[in-house]
Amino acid sequence: MGKKVVTFGELMMRLSGIGHARLVQAASLDVVYAGAEANVAVGLSNMGIDSAHVTRFPDNDLGRAAVNSLRMQGVDTGHILFGKERMGIYFVENGAMQRTSRIIYDRYDSAFAHIKPGMVDWKHVLKDASWLHWTGITPAVSQGAADTCMEAVTQAFQSGVKISGDINYRRVLWKYGKNAIDVMPSLIAKSHYIVGGVSDIENCTGLKAGSFEEAAILLKKNFSSVVAIANVDREIVNASHNRIAGALWTESGLSRSKTYDLTHIVDRIGAGDAFMAGWIYSILNNRTSQEQVDFATAACALKHSVEGDANMVSAMEIQDLVSGVNVGKLLR
Amino acid sequence: MGKKVVTFGELMMRLSGIGHARLVQAASLDVVYAGAEANVAVGLSNMGIDSAHVTRFPDNDLGRAAVNSLRMQGVDTGHILFGKERMGIYFVENGAMQRTSRIIYDRYDSAFAHIKPGMVDWKHVLKDASWLHWTGITPAVSQGAADTCMEAVTQAFQSGVKISGDINYRRVLWKYGKNAIDVMPSLIAKSHYIVGGVSDIENCTGLKAGSFEEAAILLKKNFSSVVAIANVDREIVNASHNRIAGALWTESGLSRSKTYDLTHIVDRIGAGDAFMAGWIYSILNNRTSQEQVDFATAACALKHSVEGDANMVSAMEIQDLVSGVNVGKLLR
Amino acid sequence: MGKKVVTFGELMMRLSGIGHARLVQAASLDVVYAGAEANVAVGLSNMGIDSAHVTRFPDNDLGRAAVNSLRMQGVDTGHILFGKERMGIYFVENGAMQRTSRIIYDRYDSAFAHIKPGMVDWKHVLKDASWLHWTGITPAVSQGAADTCMEAVTQAFQSGVKISGDINYRRVLWKYGKNAIDVMPSLIAKSHYIVGGVSDIENCTGLKAGSFEEAAILLKKNFSSVVAIANVDREIVNASHNRIAGALWTESGLSRSKTYDLTHIVDRIGAGDAFMAGWIYSILNNRTSQEQVDFATAACALKHSVEGDANMVSAMEIQDLVSGVNVGKLLR
Amino acid sequence: MGKKVVTFGELMMRLSGIGHARLVQAASLDVVYAGAEANVAVGLSNMGIDSAHVTRFPDNDLGRAAVNSLRMQGVDTGHILFGKERMGIYFVENGAMQRTSRIIYDRYDSAFAHIKPGMVDWKHVLKDASWLHWTGITPAVSQGAADTCMEAVTQAFQSGVKISGDINYRRVLWKYGKNAIDVMPSLIAKSHYIVGGVSDIENCTGLKAGSFEEAAILLKKNFSSVVAIANVDREIVNASHNRIAGALWTESGLSRSKTYDLTHIVDRIGAGDAFMAGWIYSILNNRTSQEQVDFATAACALKHSVEGDANMVSAMEIQDLVSGVNVGKLLR
Amino acid sequence: MGKKVVTFGELMMRLSGIGHARLVQAASLDVVYAGAEANVAVGLSNMGIDSAHVTRFPDNDLGRAAVNSLRMQGVDTGHILFGKERMGIYFVENGAMQRTSRIIYDRYDSAFAHIKPGMVDWKHVLKDASWLHWTGITPAVSQGAADTCMEAVTQAFQSGVKISGDINYRRVLWKYGKNAIDVMPSLIAKSHYIVGGVSDIENCTGLKAGSFEEAAILLKKNFSSVVAIANVDREIVNASHNRIAGALWTESGLSRSKTYDLTHIVDRIGAGDAFMAGWIYSILNNRTSQEQVDFATAACALKHSVEGDANMVSAMEIQDLVSGVNVGKLLR
Amino acid sequence: MGKKVVTFGELMMRLSGIGHARLVQAASLDVVYAGAEANVAVGLSNMGIDSAHVTRFPDNDLGRAAVNSLRMQGVDTGHILFGKERMGIYFVENGAMQRTSRIIYDRYDSAFAHIKPGMVDWKHVLKDASWLHWTGITPAVSQGAADTCMEAVTQAFQSGVKISGDINYRRVLWKYGKNAIDVMPSLIAKSHYIVGGVSDIENCTGLKAGSFEEAAILLKKNFSSVVAIANVDREIVNASHNRIAGALWTESGLSRSKTYDLTHIVDRIGAGDAFMAGWIYSILNNRTSQEQVDFATAACALKHSVEGDANMVSAMEIQDLVSGVNVGKLLR
Repeated sequence: MGKKVVTFGELMMRLSGIGHARLVQAASLDVVYAGAEANVAVGLSNMGIDSAHVTRFPDNDLGRAAVNSLRMQGVDTGHILFGKERMGIYFVENGAMQRTSRIIYDRYDSAFAHIKPGMVDWKHVLKDASWLHWTGITPAVSQGAADTCMEAVTQAFQSGVKISGDINYRRVLWKYGKNAIDVMPSLIAKSHYIVGGVSDIENCTGLKAGSFEEAAILLKKNFSSVVAIANVDREIVNASHNRIAGALWTESGLSRSKTYDLTHIVDRIGAGDAFMAGWIYSILNNRTSQEQVDFATAACALKHSVEGDANMVSAMEIQDLVSGVNVGKLLR
Repeated sequence: MGKKVVTFGELMMRLSGIGHARLVQAASLDVVYAGAEANVAVGLSNMGIDSAHVTRFPDNDLGRAAVNSLRMQGVDTGHILFGKERMGIYFVENGAMQRTSRIIYDRYDSAFAHIKPGMVDWKHVLKDASWLHWTGITPAVSQGAADTCMEAVTQAFQSGVKISGDINYRRVLWKYGKNAIDVMPSLIAKSHYIVGGVSDIENCTGLKAGSFEEAAILLKKNFSSVVAIANVDREIVNASHNRIAGALWTESGLSRSKTYDLTHIVDRIGAGDAFMAGWIYSILNNRTSQEQVDFATAACALKHSVEGDANMVSAMEIQDLVSGVNVGKLLR
Repeated sequence: MGKKVVTFGELMMRLSGIGHARLVQAASLDVVYAGAEANVAVGLSNMGIDSAHVTRFPDNDLGRAAVNSLRMQGVDTGHILFGKERMGIYFVENGAMQRTSRIIYDRYDSAFAHIKPGMVDWKHVLKDASWLHWTGITPAVSQGAADTCMEAVTQAFQSGVKISGDINYRRVLWKYGKNAIDVMPSLIAKSHYIVGGVSDIENCTGLKAGSFEEAAILLKKNFSSVVAIANVDREIVNASHNRIAGALWTESGLSRSKTYDLTHIVDRIGAGDAFMAGWIYSILNNRTSQEQVDFATAACALKHSVEGDANMVSAMEIQDLVSGVNVGKLLR
Repeated sequence: MGKKVVTFGELMMRLSGIGHARLVQAASLDVVYAGAEANVAVGLSNMGIDSAHVTRFPDNDLGRAAVNSLRMQGVDTGHILFGKERMGIYFVENGAMQRTSRIIYDRYDSAFAHIKPGMVDWKHVLKDASWLHWTGITPAVSQGAADTCMEAVTQAFQSGVKISGDINYRRVLWKYGKNAIDVMPSLIAKSHYIVGGVSDIENCTGLKAGSFEEAAILLKKNFSSVVAIANVDREIVNASHNRIAGALWTESGLSRSKTYDLTHIVDRIGAGDAFMAGWIYSILNNRTSQEQVDFATAACALKHSVEGDANMVSAMEIQDLVSGVNVGKLLR
Repeated sequence: MGKKVVTFGELMMRLSGIGHARLVQAASLDVVYAGAEANVAVGLSNMGIDSAHVTRFPDNDLGRAAVNSLRMQGVDTGHILFGKERMGIYFVENGAMQRTSRIIYDRYDSAFAHIKPGMVDWKHVLKDASWLHWTGITPAVSQGAADTCMEAVTQAFQSGVKISGDINYRRVLWKYGKNAIDVMPSLIAKSHYIVGGVSDIENCTGLKAGSFEEAAILLKKNFSSVVAIANVDREIVNASHNRIAGALWTESGLSRSKTYDLTHIVDRIGAGDAFMAGWIYSILNNRTSQEQVDFATAACALKHSVEGDANMVSAMEIQDLVSGVNVGKLLR
Repeated sequence: MGKKVVTFGELMMRLSGIGHARLVQAASLDVVYAGAEANVAVGLSNMGIDSAHVTRFPDNDLGRAAVNSLRMQGVDTGHILFGKERMGIYFVENGAMQRTSRIIYDRYDSAFAHIKPGMVDWKHVLKDASWLHWTGITPAVSQGAADTCMEAVTQAFQSGVKISGDINYRRVLWKYGKNAIDVMPSLIAKSHYIVGGVSDIENCTGLKAGSFEEAAILLKKNFSSVVAIANVDREIVNASHNRIAGALWTESGLSRSKTYDLTHIVDRIGAGDAFMAGWIYSILNNRTSQEQVDFATAACALKHSVEGDANMVSAMEIQDLVSGVNVGKLLR
């Protein structure tokens, strides 16, 4: 697999309370570096797919630690930029049962938010790429990030690189004067694989639908480049217990995965990114739609058992879960 | 809310095994300072209610650490006394599934056990108070503690301060020569809000009943000052999984909360105190009986997800649980 | 209870990831010393039965730490040998939900693997013994270990010491040129109490059966010294949730325990050894077959709530679980 | 001591590597909340002096945790403001020997940086105050912080409250368009007690001197309100070993403390604040100049042995060090 | 070495702050079980000498954990008694540089304090003993402890067992109505080896001397059973840096060890007990006086580098230090 | 700097006691992956020099974690081989003061020990290399490792790649039948830069000398390819305090660095490798001999302040130490 999957977006320092401690109780915090798009790069690398992440870090020890955390996972960091602003941070409080989990974002004015078109030589970056992945978080961060995202997508589209976008609508992020609907349609218009649910699609495109299938059909109708739309449905029993099932729509119809009962959640952050990575993996491996949604959803399910944002599981572990092999056993 | 809720009772050093370690395995122990009545003060402070705790500590670094732990939570510690005896201690072993949780008390001869009537200037303490809270643990500790509790209740009763008592019967505590039934009736006789179940009520008053409602009616009949009686029913599936539901009786009848399924308990110690704090909060906020039992039980439910004895949740978090808003979600 | 239960087998250093961390994430590892047979000795000691463990350690600080860990639990270590090779090690990754738990063994060339007949003075060791326990792991480790195990069993058989064997078939261990079927029958032929399931029995003896009862009857028919056969059935809901039930066959018939629902597993390693220890305890205390299987299975159930391999629970705790007393409560 | 010492300035979240870990190695970070001025309030509170801190926090769990950390130490937090911006953060890497210690500041755009004149009711805040303390860090943060500092100093000066300023020049902080020399003279002009060395004084006032005494004399000549100037001289043997000595100038002349040999530094951050707190304590207790510099320097020395920014030592411990009582002993 | 060294005294739970944290900062505490006399038993066991400890514990998990901690170190715990009172506790705060280390004792009313003559069958205990060791702490704890200590010493004296006493005077311990001088002389009168300095000897016997040699000569003159007196001189540079040197007096004269420069103290508690164990070891191995004091002082020096009270070093490590072999090297 | 420094040798799992805990006390162990040659690659990468490491790992999660640890530091791991044997391990006990530090090696039968000539395509590996580094540890591990090392050196020599060898004699390692003197001369004969002291040189070549300079001259005389010889002299005050100074000999004469007083050692393992990396860096940057020894020794000095084997310091930090800039300061 010589060609790389390139991901683009902000990587932040994640500071999490230990166990179920509330942030007000925290005498120490666990540190990892994570971000929606980089999580996909790391997930793919763990499945054996070459990946590279493009972002912008502050030129200090926190930026260097973030680079190290990607390199550790085998992600190519050769295209990362450095600037003089700060590292984005987010604080995680791990809920339990009825108590919600909470994230406090502290990403304003980060080095990534100051990225601008022209800073990244996308032609060079995408030269060896088979795939570009972006998410709806990036265009929400700043005008510069939105413009740079569009620049990347445009270059990839021209170069015949496959493009995926997880549209991932988060209202609170859009603070720089634009709304999702101002920016997202032109990004979707040059993408092939979209992850999003009914409300994401409505918020990002204005297309209203009563079901995922209907939303997918509408999206396809309005954005002809799109070839497949996928989504994970999540039922929240409580903070410790969720159920998930994946759905994938193509013009051939809708495929659904089995439902996973996630009864003892270790860490659910990054589960959507794990789904995305699993989906890209299956497409790159020429799997059928049913196989794609099965594999992507199993990847997503396993993520809930792994600490941190990144899905440190191998393709074989995911495939075993799809096949029902060794599930939950003690392997000696 | 200018007037304070004053709580009176022993605050101890709680030493807990890490995770599910048994005490015989413990190479280190987590430290918090807690006690049934102080837990109520802390719970109320986290809900935005001014509170003050009255107790007696040894005049050493452990006593100072205990004061700090209350001040941190916003509890007024200005009336705390210091003596030369020791800090009461309890050791907690956190069970799992079929294995019981265990507490080893080591509170004999504590500075609090040596408290005596006349040491606290109750008139002064209660000057700015709207409420006094005591529990059945205090009169069980020593004759001096029982007498001082009576002194406090008497003064509050005379001053028109509302009084609540969690009668919380624990047979093993009564070692100084008196039994609950010798002491508790006179305390209940000057209280307005009582928490207790059928067996608590029988053990503390001799009144036998076949149901909570019957017990409440009997209690009211015998103790005319009492205006409401509440209790939490707990079904123990195993040490990691309980179900709770609250009940509240007034002369207008019985109100019951929904049942909470607590499937992944983090720490159940202090759950009753969280219920008490939630109840006091609702009364002070003039809620209806149904609202009171709903709020108090939701507070109790949330406590099971919080490490330590104290219920570090806000009134808004509790209200959200009552309303079914954001329950178990990941809030970004 | 003057006479000891003697166990024989390898004790290894167990290095476990913290919480649910994957081994590739581990910045530190928890250390205990454990092994299938020694786990039985420790379990019995915690139940109040004198026990001694025979093994061979490297003559370095790791060997000394392993001795300490047994002495701490009250196991007699006076017969342990020391050599110049290495300490066997195993690495444990604690799974969750759908993610499997994993053990990486690193026990090749250990001091124990170099044990040889004649090194242990079995006559002396067994002089004060009432019982000898071995498992199918030991003869799998090396020819020397297999021969020494046979030497021990032969001496015990001659001395009228009761002998138990947990046949515990693990295909990957048999690497020195022999298979289980070459070695196990002669060990079983001199044993009285056997733990094993249908496939264990088939792999170790070639006897094929459709059910545990049938397997047990066949085993008895072919190995006349055997007086009872037991086994734990395990249903794996997921890595965090299992169900177990015990079965015990004697010529009087089959006894079954209740099923335990293990909904929040803390550590399942050593559960079979806990069953074995519980069974030996009940036999030494002259319990009936039903009482034996009830007690052994309750011991096994409790093990799932205890960190580490060893079952640090008392006979009274196990008996309380059998009797349904205090199960999952908070004991003050 | 009814009147309070009021301190004003930013309190940040301090995230420190564990032990001597470099920030790039950090898998977790210790959390405290600290700031130059608040450190003085905490130090005074530990010496038994009532203190209050004025600052502005984000209205989130980090702001609440910061409030808790001050309340825990007995500092009055009743005048703290809340806004919608972020918590200032700084990252600490603890050096050793030849390796430097490092701080990465991430305080831009904090809630405190957005403070503006008129937000704090200084008349009300200073009503019960005997003292106001500010540092040169605050006017460096933002125009609003500088203006609010001037507002506070002006009000205190008018009200006859004693005013101290630690001029603490840090070039890298002055980024909003002003330099120290534009702002500091008018603050110093209304202050009575100044901490600063030769280069601080030059950078903040333009007054050049060859020695501390000369600088102090010059400062007094130019700023008639100033009654005393103090400073700590630090000799850096290496990051683990420093030597300090205090100097205090008044019109009566120069007093010097003994030199403390700090051979095994635990944490040197906040040492200057500890000196300041010790000095304020001694002035409030009417000590002589020699006693003042002795006490303040001993407080500073002890700080180097205490983890975190805040000097958690009592006045008695400081006095014992001044007197050479029990120094370095094991007290049982 | 078939015969055992028997030690008698209280073993407590030691709860220590982590690193240099003050007790008021402690969010968790490290746990070991230790006591002056048991430390000697553990030290001897680590040197290869059989030892047994006699004490009285509460019959709960803390008592069991304390037994485990002794068994782990190879100390015979077969003579330990159990009662219903509490475990003695002490809290340790580890100082640094000028800041003192502190111990808060919480041992009142412990199970050991309730020991009484007749509870221990000393004839049986001492049957296989070559040595009995006591300290001046035991008779200070309670009348019962003093009487039981006298009972043990008397029995040992009659049986021809060698007796050592570390007279270890601590004024604050003597609270039950007796002073050292009331009790110690009769214990010393039946002892052969005494550890104590000039002031210890004066406080315990009333014998005043100007030097250790003079004190030793006086002690010998007044207590004819005593054959040797030893002591460690400690110079406190600061809490992190001490210097020690041993002295040993017999009728043949005074021997002195070299001085050890302890420049980076890890844990100094138990250093005197390490000296005692080293001395007993050397006497049992028939070393000369000079060899005795050299070995005992080297043992004491090494203790300062070991965490916890107990001296986990081998006789060979101590001998290497005496011989100047490998000191401070990195041994591969 | 396009060309890489290639290092070849075993990378092991390092398991270290926490703080100063002895291995027998360890309840958990810190994990890093390290080895003499890989430490050089990591050191160089932190100085900004491209490096690649060649080794052989077991094909399991430990091997993968080891790869991750190199990738994290920016070392190219593309040439690493995987086999089915085990990961070499070493256990570290961190001494203090007079107590020695200790390493227990457990590297027998590792995947690296099974490396054989022909497994690595050295022509390919060295294609982009400017430098090859080996140490005397590798040829000591196994015949296959020695042969593969010779294979690498021969290929590099032919390709005109610069070659350095740290001859690092460790007697205990040579167990497979050869001695250093059988193998090392032919490796030295094809190397250009040698690190070794008088006794290393004697043990590896038989050349006896009375001083480093004399040894270096002799080595040059006998091994004409060698152009420079360097060494670090270490004076051990105690385990916590060493002094080091570097020496470098070329035909132009001897250069010596200043002496560094390492008064509070954090971790001295890998110090020699840090020296080596510093030396290679200076040669690649065309420094003079004096500059080389100054830079290499400063790198070595800084390593003593960094946890783990690897020298995580930048070239600028090293240069600052050489220049005496900011040494031991607190940089804000």
